[in-house]
Amino acid sequence: MSFFERHVFICTNERPPDNPKGSCTARGSASVVDAFKRELSERGLNGRLRAQKAGCLDYCRHGVTVVVYPDAIWYGGVTPEDVREIVESHLLEGRPVERLRIPADAPRG
Amino acid sequence: MSFFERHVFICTNERPPDNPKGSCTARGSASVVDAFKRELSERGLNGRLRAQKAGCLDYCRHGVTVVVYPDAIWYGGVTPEDVREIVESHLLEGRPVERLRIPADAPRG
Repeated sequence: MSFFERHVFICTNERPPDNPKGSCTARGSASVVDAFKRELSERGLNGRLRAQKAGCLDYCRHGVTVVVYPDAIWYGGVTPEDVREIVESHLLEGRPVERLRIPADAPRG
Repeated sequence: MSFFERHVFICTNERPPDNPKGSCTARGSASVVDAFKRELSERGLNGRLRAQKAGCLDYCRHGVTVVVYPDAIWYGGVTPEDVREIVESHLLEGRPVERLRIPADAPRG
């Protein structure tokens, strides 16, 4: 067994409710983590691919943030309903889901 | 500004004290996170590089686990004393720290 072919990090950072930046957890990132884990598990992909929690990815303003390595493809505003498409198109077939991508020159924070 | 040139994930997973796998947090990974953040901050590298917490990276038996993307270089048994070398040699100069690497065929879990 080698390292993961693709490795997905989902921001699950939490901030106090009154923080103006909000947080990915407040926007529902835990359910995105669950959706990735369920999708990979049901397809028997856990040895090849991994999806997991991460701290703040520093693209807070773009909604629930996900980064896929080693491709270094960033997604914003991801919902559980997007997960199957990311798995099928990107993780398995190597075609990133363009409609969800954060542009490389997007502001951080 | 573009995405990060290199992105470091440090496992900060926690398990109950009686779990036979132990956990990176029990082995001191929080101080490794702090050392990375301090090192990057003091060198003014926060725009180019990022180091942050992650959930379980699934190489628990190798000690505190760190992965650097997009290189996909894995390190095990990392201590705060190793961080400066990783930053200088690998993150800045592109030469991974061989003595700390987890081999690609190493067992997981």
